[in-house]
Amino acid sequence: MKKLTVIKVGGKIVEEEDTLQQLLKNFSAIEGPKVLVHGGGRSATKLAAQLGIESTMIDGRRVTDADMLRVVTMVYGGLVNKNIVAQLQACGINALGLTGADMNVILSHRRKPKNVKMADGTEQMVDFGYVGDVDAANGEGLAKIIEQGITPVMAPLTHDGKGSLLNTNADTIAGTTAKALAPFFDVTLIYTFEHAGVLRNADDEGSVIPHIDNRSFEQYKADGTITGGMIPKIENALEAIAAGVRRVIITHANAIDGNHGTIIE
Amino acid sequence: MKKLTVIKVGGKIVEEEDTLQQLLKNFSAIEGPKVLVHGGGRSATKLAAQLGIESTMIDGRRVTDADMLRVVTMVYGGLVNKNIVAQLQACGINALGLTGADMNVILSHRRKPKNVKMADGTEQMVDFGYVGDVDAANGEGLAKIIEQGITPVMAPLTHDGKGSLLNTNADTIAGTTAKALAPFFDVTLIYTFEHAGVLRNADDEGSVIPHIDNRSFEQYKADGTITGGMIPKIENALEAIAAGVRRVIITHANAIDGNHGTIIE
Repeated sequence: MKKLTVIKVGGKIVEEEDTLQQLLKNFSAIEGPKVLVHGGGRSATKLAAQLGIESTMIDGRRVTDADMLRVVTMVYGGLVNKNIVAQLQACGINALGLTGADMNVILSHRRKPKNVKMADGTEQMVDFGYVGDVDAANGEGLAKIIEQGITPVMAPLTHDGKGSLLNTNADTIAGTTAKALAPFFDVTLIYTFEHAGVLRNADDEGSVIPHIDNRSFEQYKADGTITGGMIPKIENALEAIAAGVRRVIITHANAIDGNHGTIIE
Repeated sequence: MKKLTVIKVGGKIVEEEDTLQQLLKNFSAIEGPKVLVHGGGRSATKLAAQLGIESTMIDGRRVTDADMLRVVTMVYGGLVNKNIVAQLQACGINALGLTGADMNVILSHRRKPKNVKMADGTEQMVDFGYVGDVDAANGEGLAKIIEQGITPVMAPLTHDGKGSLLNTNADTIAGTTAKALAPFFDVTLIYTFEHAGVLRNADDEGSVIPHIDNRSFEQYKADGTITGGMIPKIENALEAIAAGVRRVIITHANAIDGNHGTIIE
């Protein structure tokens, strides 16, 4: 099967002109079919503030009322997405910006209010509003587009099939897309963040663990090498691999050539 | 050749929930492949005002500085486009939102400052800013997508191939798209507006001229039946037909079934 790379980059990288330029250059240099998934939360928070709309984050997730849905639709689907598309075109990449609504790429349902453990340890019932949990992805439609030489650029928005857009975490979009394309391609899923990879020692960027699989993950958890928020990240990666993705790489946003970071497979 | 309909609807229709619902229902009912081109100027003006950005219109066209380009990118490419796409998906139409940058659909160049006749009769050199005049359209790429059963929804934005989006009039987007698809389909281009068609008598919605061609247009101009802003509209329509579009219809936005309004061919 032909190799394909799905790369998720966070808001910080795509929202600053310098880092975006470098990222798009590195992304363009990746051989073969590829998909870029982006965030945009900082720009959304900024626009919301300019419009007098308060941003509420609970457990790292944005509460999305009707006004905030308009903001994220404008920022993720318009501002960030279309500027990336235009800049990739200038790099010779035939980019196509997509939300989950476009070509019915990712269908979701609105998240029901749920109990969330707050920072202070208490539990609270939270309605996240127009936030979508994924139900299905149109891998076949996406694969067809990619086989025509088109590079999808995906915004963190999905739709409910009933006419409403929904705000969906970009990591989830990337994982869903990688899994949906796994029947058609040999998929590498790259999650970028601010570190060089999964670190043995949080203070040492040179201590990247080069390779993790199910067995070593259990060991690293047991001996306390991998803790906290990194555990669910790796669980998600292993789950993507169980669903057919060939490998997941966790790496710094400036090292996306597939030869850096932690490879999970 | 298979029939295809390109419909341009103005901002007013797509920016009000009631009229948008009806339009999308009527649009969905059109048989065969179709393309929707939308405006969004009123929402752009509104968002700009909320952000303290002044909207300047000269000769009916928006002056687009860097801040205004951000606004129209958010509103046309994000808010209006993606909501239409999500609502068409709910109508069973496999919509795909596009700017000219996506799949390199419409390439343009930034308009040079030019002399414009102002309302008071004087001429003035105007720099419209990030406004794009069309150079080329990727009809083949668009036709391929349409042949897969996808319905393009086009925002009035193009790109310059050097990384910048540009603001481009929605009528121009519609005409360009219709002409670019003419080698692949039997294209009907429908321009909607607030009247039932081209009227013999501006005060009588019942006085629609059912049919105009090159010869009758000359007559109508000569005898003063068609005057003012309608002349360039019909000139554009005749130019589209000369470029291979089968027919152009000028009709009310609530009568887009191809059996109402003025047919120009």
